[in-house]
Amino acid sequence: MVQQQTSDPALLDRAFAALADETRRGVLTRLGSGAATITELAAPSGMTLTGIRKHVDVLEAAGLVTTEKVGRARQVSLGTERLDDAMAWITFYQRLWERRLDGLDAYFTLTKGTES
Amino acid sequence: MVQQQTSDPALLDRAFAALADETRRGVLTRLGSGAATITELAAPSGMTLTGIRKHVDVLEAAGLVTTEKVGRARQVSLGTERLDDAMAWITFYQRLWERRLDGLDAYFTLTKGTES
Repeated sequence: MVQQQTSDPALLDRAFAALADETRRGVLTRLGSGAATITELAAPSGMTLTGIRKHVDVLEAAGLVTTEKVGRARQVSLGTERLDDAMAWITFYQRLWERRLDGLDAYFTLTKGTES
Repeated sequence: MVQQQTSDPALLDRAFAALADETRRGVLTRLGSGAATITELAAPSGMTLTGIRKHVDVLEAAGLVTTEKVGRARQVSLGTERLDDAMAWITFYQRLWERRLDGLDAYFTLTKGTES
């Protein structure tokens, strides 16, 4: 029996939802090189500051970034969320998926009358 | 330099969005034990058939399930999507995240005037 990881469903919902957008994934990638202001994050995407700020809010709610006022700018850094639960869930799913294939293999082996 | 995986952003959006809901994750877990009809999937969740069908549509658009008419029922099975790209993206992110911590370690080591 494959054991499912126990984790807070709402946290997992927020983490996966935060990752379900290319711009937000781009922001996380950019922050991997160091903190950036909202203006710096907006520049490569061609988005408005308001647009980027909304994406940053979604990432912050998921714990994936933290923000801090520095003078008149808002500085954004990678947060404390390591996505361990998201990783664990996908690992769990892949085990289910492979077990299902093992089941099919066993079935085909059986119907061919051979043993392995 | 951490290399980012190349994958279709829209597929990745759909995969993460599909996973961002506890009911949909529950449906995938259930299907790991074998195919089920919409009615069978609805029973444990206490949701309406229409509600479950909408979740199944989201999962199907992401390639995570396939559906097939069997008589008057719609049978749902795990699909072909293994979530390899989603797994690769989270692995990429965790490397960025750890590298950032390595950077902080290096900084604190430096400010303490020790070398390592």
